Amino acid sequence: MTAFAHLLTPADARAAFAKAYTPRPLGTERIGLLEAFGRVLAEEVRAGSDLPAFDRSTVDGYAVRVEDTSEASTGAPVPLAVVGEVLMGHPATLPLAGGQAIRIPTGGALPPGADAVVMQEHTVRQDGMVYVERPASPGENIVHRGEDLRAGDVVLRPGRRLQPQDVGLLAGVGRVEVEVFVRPRVAVIVTGDELLPPGQAASGAQIYDMNTYTLAGLIEASGGRPVPCGIVGDNVQLVIERARSAHRRADAVILAGGSAVGERDVVTDAIAALGDPGIVVHGIAIRPGKPTILAVAKGKPVFGLPGNVVSAMVVYDQFVRPVVEALAGLSGAPRAGSTVRARLARALHAAQREDHVRVALEERQGVLWATPVPGGSAIMTSMVRADGILVVPIGAALAEGSEVEVRLIGA
Amino acid sequence: MTAFAHLLTPADARAAFAKAYTPRPLGTERIGLLEAFGRVLAEEVRAGSDLPAFDRSTVDGYAVRVEDTSEASTGAPVPLAVVGEVLMGHPATLPLAGGQAIRIPTGGALPPGADAVVMQEHTVRQDGMVYVERPASPGENIVHRGEDLRAGDVVLRPGRRLQPQDVGLLAGVGRVEVEVFVRPRVAVIVTGDELLPPGQAASGAQIYDMNTYTLAGLIEASGGRPVPCGIVGDNVQLVIERARSAHRRADAVILAGGSAVGERDVVTDAIAALGDPGIVVHGIAIRPGKPTILAVAKGKPVFGLPGNVVSAMVVYDQFVRPVVEALAGLSGAPRAGSTVRARLARALHAAQREDHVRVALEERQGVLWATPVPGGSAIMTSMVRADGILVVPIGAALAEGSEVEVRLIGA
Repeated sequence: MTAFAHLLTPADARAAFAKAYTPRPLGTERIGLLEAFGRVLAEEVRAGSDLPAFDRSTVDGYAVRVEDTSEASTGAPVPLAVVGEVLMGHPATLPLAGGQAIRIPTGGALPPGADAVVMQEHTVRQDGMVYVERPASPGENIVHRGEDLRAGDVVLRPGRRLQPQDVGLLAGVGRVEVEVFVRPRVAVIVTGDELLPPGQAASGAQIYDMNTYTLAGLIEASGGRPVPCGIVGDNVQLVIERARSAHRRADAVILAGGSAVGERDVVTDAIAALGDPGIVVHGIAIRPGKPTILAVAKGKPVFGLPGNVVSAMVVYDQFVRPVVEALAGLSGAPRAGSTVRARLARALHAAQREDHVRVALEERQGVLWATPVPGGSAIMTSMVRADGILVVPIGAALAEGSEVEVRLIGA
Repeated sequence: MTAFAHLLTPADARAAFAKAYTPRPLGTERIGLLEAFGRVLAEEVRAGSDLPAFDRSTVDGYAVRVEDTSEASTGAPVPLAVVGEVLMGHPATLPLAGGQAIRIPTGGALPPGADAVVMQEHTVRQDGMVYVERPASPGENIVHRGEDLRAGDVVLRPGRRLQPQDVGLLAGVGRVEVEVFVRPRVAVIVTGDELLPPGQAASGAQIYDMNTYTLAGLIEASGGRPVPCGIVGDNVQLVIERARSAHRRADAVILAGGSAVGERDVVTDAIAALGDPGIVVHGIAIRPGKPTILAVAKGKPVFGLPGNVVSAMVVYDQFVRPVVEALAGLSGAPRAGSTVRARLARALHAAQREDHVRVALEERQGVLWATPVPGGSAIMTSMVRADGILVVPIGAALAEGSEVEVRLIGA
């Protein structure tokens, strides 16, 4: 007899939870561009004007008419009269006539009448004349007005985590501020009579709380703001009080520890007391992570995670991260590079639960190998030594040397 | 005739710069664990005591003597007298004798005399007795004292960027604070008469400064603190003044724009004026990025980057990032997942410079394809649309369908 009579598969657990709760972004705020890196864009940004706003040279050289240069060669360079110079930041007002050239710097505005720029390297300057040694082709060394963006083009769409180049492009279209999604506050309560905050002297069978610190980092990495709510002993009333206060202050609540079915149902009772609809899933066929609780209380998601920190990390990644990311407004596919393909260094046997195996990655002769890290889920160093996690589906076995997909930790 | 008479290959440029300058971490600071995620560890951390500090159960169940359970089966369960219960956080003082069992929760301290824990799921409790339905094996469901870490074991080494699990492990060994490297301040000055800060109305042939914002994000991502120093026009004296002030305030200085050889040698002169040994490399056979300057002034690195923001990003990644990362104390190999293997969607031709091609990644039928993004290096949207960059070595050509390694942007 198992204490979890109704273990759901991970897929069924996700489906049940999705029916009970849909995470939505919480609101937006306007911030300056220098704070925008890494934040999630909340608005559709369109170009207010063409980028560039004028035809520009991409090289240092001479603006010319293509037809004047058609016969040019190193042996017989074509002489053109240099009638002026384009200054950076100034519109090119001086028009170019046949037989003429105008000195132009990289980024300078193309003079009217010119249809190409000859690189300085392909010219010789002498006595007010420039000798062009190569024929130019139409548009050569020119970026045309609107070639990067046309006025009204969508620059960036909401749901994107802003990268350095995105913030640069926002500046490029003249923005000083940008609307981003508010970061969801995610409360972390750890429960357990055995837990002690680091810094205090441990005695007897006490251990230091690792979950507060590990989960805080994971929450930050998925776009949330961790709200550490401390340690509570295994007392239903105290846990309920702490959970209620966290539920008021935060947009999502995590309780870590004490969710094993048995005599320690403190967390289960506390989550149930937070409000309707309450516990949606209790017990998932995942290893590690079986005693996971997925719940909703008064419109906010509440998670019961195993007290074991390795298990809590796996469950966070599988069930909490997607919710925090959605609350944070992130949308779209996981980014390329969050997984790698590797060969499995030793066979992994079938399990009755979906098995999340910590692996170290090592390249040997150009092939990436994934080696399971020894140590059960109670061993935190196994997570520190691992580079990624590979999933063995329920009932499946993976042969040595088989190709596997590894999700990188921290990616 | 080329204006850069002595273009160095990227490898030669790196070697020349490495001879002139070795970046070293700048100093350390002590911070609380909740601020430590993402920072670079500056100390070797050792476990002060065993982790766990006592033998612990990994399940809810009963502490037993293995020999008592050797005949147990579902058909003929072995009865044991339940003589007590282990409480979380309390040392297990009650010893276990033959024929006895002690109730133990997940994480509870193993009582003296016990050598295994039987999962509750494999027992039936009745009238003060527990009936064990399976033989236990020695050490089953136990994590032994020191199995995660022994006192004195190295927990983490300096130079590591702290991940959530690393911070958790620091808490696990009782640490409340940790010594991390100070983040290097990297000044960014952009030069060019044509540049305008976003937010002001552009007129004539002015364009908005994108480099300040793009480089700030890149500096942050590589562990530095961006120090934006604004826009300076193409005036040698003004650029020298701004560069001197930046050089005093920061640990490294970037000047973006104006480094093309020709009549615009403002940045070159300004860098040369900062102090000895001065400019080490001017001109690198890389596309984009040819007019790059690598310099050292009074022990601090100074970089002249192309004004073109796409070029500046490529050069930052190739020549500035490794220096900022070393100043930030980061050591070790790039992390797995910063590159992916893909097939090239169209042939790329040989170039006289090492070609850094922006590519979009797309999976089709399980194969990842890399498609070069249209638009020259003056087109910022090409960087926003790209997922990564692939390098075509000098003089090489890559056939359609060939396997290439793509460095992910932002990884």
